[in-house]
Amino acid sequence: MTENVKINRGLKGVYFERSAVSDIDGAAGELRYRGYSIHDLATQSSFEEVCFLLIHGALPSADDLAAFDAELKAARTLPTEVFDIIAACKHGHPMDVLRTAVSALAALEPASQTVGEDAFVANGIRLTSQIPMIIAAHEAIRNGRDPVAPDADLGHAANWLWMLKGEKPSAAAAHLADVDFILHAEHGSNASSFAARVTIGTEANLHGGIVTALSTLAGPAHGGAAEDVMKMVRDIGTPENAAAYVKAKRSAREAVTGFGHRVYRKEDPRARHMRDGVRRLGEEMGAPEWYEILQAVVEAMKPYARHGLNVNVDFYSGVIYQLHGIPMDLYVPIFAIGRMPGWVIQCMEQQHSNILIRPLTLYNGPEARDYVPITARG
Amino acid sequence: MTENVKINRGLKGVYFERSAVSDIDGAAGELRYRGYSIHDLATQSSFEEVCFLLIHGALPSADDLAAFDAELKAARTLPTEVFDIIAACKHGHPMDVLRTAVSALAALEPASQTVGEDAFVANGIRLTSQIPMIIAAHEAIRNGRDPVAPDADLGHAANWLWMLKGEKPSAAAAHLADVDFILHAEHGSNASSFAARVTIGTEANLHGGIVTALSTLAGPAHGGAAEDVMKMVRDIGTPENAAAYVKAKRSAREAVTGFGHRVYRKEDPRARHMRDGVRRLGEEMGAPEWYEILQAVVEAMKPYARHGLNVNVDFYSGVIYQLHGIPMDLYVPIFAIGRMPGWVIQCMEQQHSNILIRPLTLYNGPEARDYVPITARG
Repeated sequence: MTENVKINRGLKGVYFERSAVSDIDGAAGELRYRGYSIHDLATQSSFEEVCFLLIHGALPSADDLAAFDAELKAARTLPTEVFDIIAACKHGHPMDVLRTAVSALAALEPASQTVGEDAFVANGIRLTSQIPMIIAAHEAIRNGRDPVAPDADLGHAANWLWMLKGEKPSAAAAHLADVDFILHAEHGSNASSFAARVTIGTEANLHGGIVTALSTLAGPAHGGAAEDVMKMVRDIGTPENAAAYVKAKRSAREAVTGFGHRVYRKEDPRARHMRDGVRRLGEEMGAPEWYEILQAVVEAMKPYARHGLNVNVDFYSGVIYQLHGIPMDLYVPIFAIGRMPGWVIQCMEQQHSNILIRPLTLYNGPEARDYVPITARG
Repeated sequence: MTENVKINRGLKGVYFERSAVSDIDGAAGELRYRGYSIHDLATQSSFEEVCFLLIHGALPSADDLAAFDAELKAARTLPTEVFDIIAACKHGHPMDVLRTAVSALAALEPASQTVGEDAFVANGIRLTSQIPMIIAAHEAIRNGRDPVAPDADLGHAANWLWMLKGEKPSAAAAHLADVDFILHAEHGSNASSFAARVTIGTEANLHGGIVTALSTLAGPAHGGAAEDVMKMVRDIGTPENAAAYVKAKRSAREAVTGFGHRVYRKEDPRARHMRDGVRRLGEEMGAPEWYEILQAVVEAMKPYARHGLNVNVDFYSGVIYQLHGIPMDLYVPIFAIGRMPGWVIQCMEQQHSNILIRPLTLYNGPEARDYVPITARG
């Protein structure tokens, strides 16, 4: 009987819920948050506005946005214990340290324990501001520096670069970080958001969902692409080597990092905004060669585009971080900064219309057998 | 077109993978680990042996078991930083503190970063021994006591009670804790194990999977039943009140805690072993009334058994912990101690035959709409 059961490996193509947040048309290569094209948002909006849009469902008025921004800024605080905890595990991977600190916030801040729409909004805003602080504080502490205090004159992206580097970013650099966060803010039922929903499905609190999301994003197959692309670019070295590199990879039937996506069959619509950013930042910083290597890889990959192997969003982001001098092990934490509002709203949707998420595995182990006492075993 | 898409809410009845670990026949009320009946294991085996069975797939020889037990005992160590971290967040819920400490272990122990079968076995054994230490250390620290060092003369369950209470448990008490752990060791694709698999599906390491599992188990709808039953028993107070309590609940169409299970249509096969334990422990401790209240509730619920509302495993465990004087907020952490081998082997299965677990949500938000600059909004 069980022979006829269908196994949906990876749950590919299985719908488990409705969601009013992001609309992904993989065949057309389109992505919308709450109905708004990712292209309009990337070119005209701000990360703060996108957070509001995702969480509240509509674009804010000027007053709404000012109030929301004030809330985000007021939430730029961490209990002193969090700095001690970061220091205690400072030699760890930044994703492990970030996850530990967020988990500790659940133990340290009693408001984290409340489950419900208002609590999730408040705790989501709080964590959105705290997560970049934790990452920047860890980077400072592991390098023997004091953490940089947040600057209330700076928006989310600019303040992040300020806390990370201890110097005010150029307007262009801050804008590019802002666009990066917008592009990463939400992406349907990706593995980290889905895992967070499974956690919330047991009526866990938001911090529980976010800890799960961080654990899941940390897996190389989810959040690791930007780092892998940067390693590839370093391996390739110069634009002239790109074609031979791609040919060798394809001959060995290995994947070329930064191409292909479970959902998109055309170019990932987020990629173009990062591409422009890499080009401009490279020129501004007098290091155009990275962009040239990336474009040479894209050129060499063109014959494979009909297999759906188009460039994805992470193809360009690693090089941007490299140009900023950001260590490679911070690339995934940066992804987490951007993805926060998406995780928060998906946890909110799950909590609002909740059900335990519990699929099945089909048993294929030994048949029923008798227990043999240890003295009677061979 | 999307109108005809089937939504599998809660992924109920959806198979996502094969598994050779536990075989659950919900209709027949049967549970087997690796082919062995839960009844044989609960009455004849030990938690250490069940760990070996689950992880390695077969019952150990006497030599195998001795070596495995020695590995578990050797792993009863924690870096000093973990005690500092527990102290820093000692006022938090024990599940939050436990999750924070396990997450910190990933940052503190470099071996945690390796992904693969051997690494998962080694790290799984290590965490199986460390998790009871963390819970007991937290209980000591929050009560102003020094953590109790593990005792290598004691097995897993007895050592847990020793570290928790600072006194050697009776043989009967240690045996009952051992049975409790066996019964909780593995249960198919429950929410915490499934969430851990989603995390491992991104090629995350075992610690990442276990952190996700802990986040998910912490939700009241998953791990909270034992605590809820204990609260119910206190509310009821005496056996005579049970019938009226059940009647009032049913009239109000509210669930009676400890009854019903997503999978079982008959009595949860694990329940009978805990039932016997409660009765005997209650008699041993001169407090038989708890058992009598529970049985009065079971009697009052009998008319509803045809709706699948049979007693589940958590119906009895809370009272056992209560008889031991264990605080209610440790009930879920105790569940985690027992579930460790199940989480480990499911993470191993997922890692062995890996695929990104990424289902879909069906978009039901706003249609595509034009972005309106903030100055032009109403």
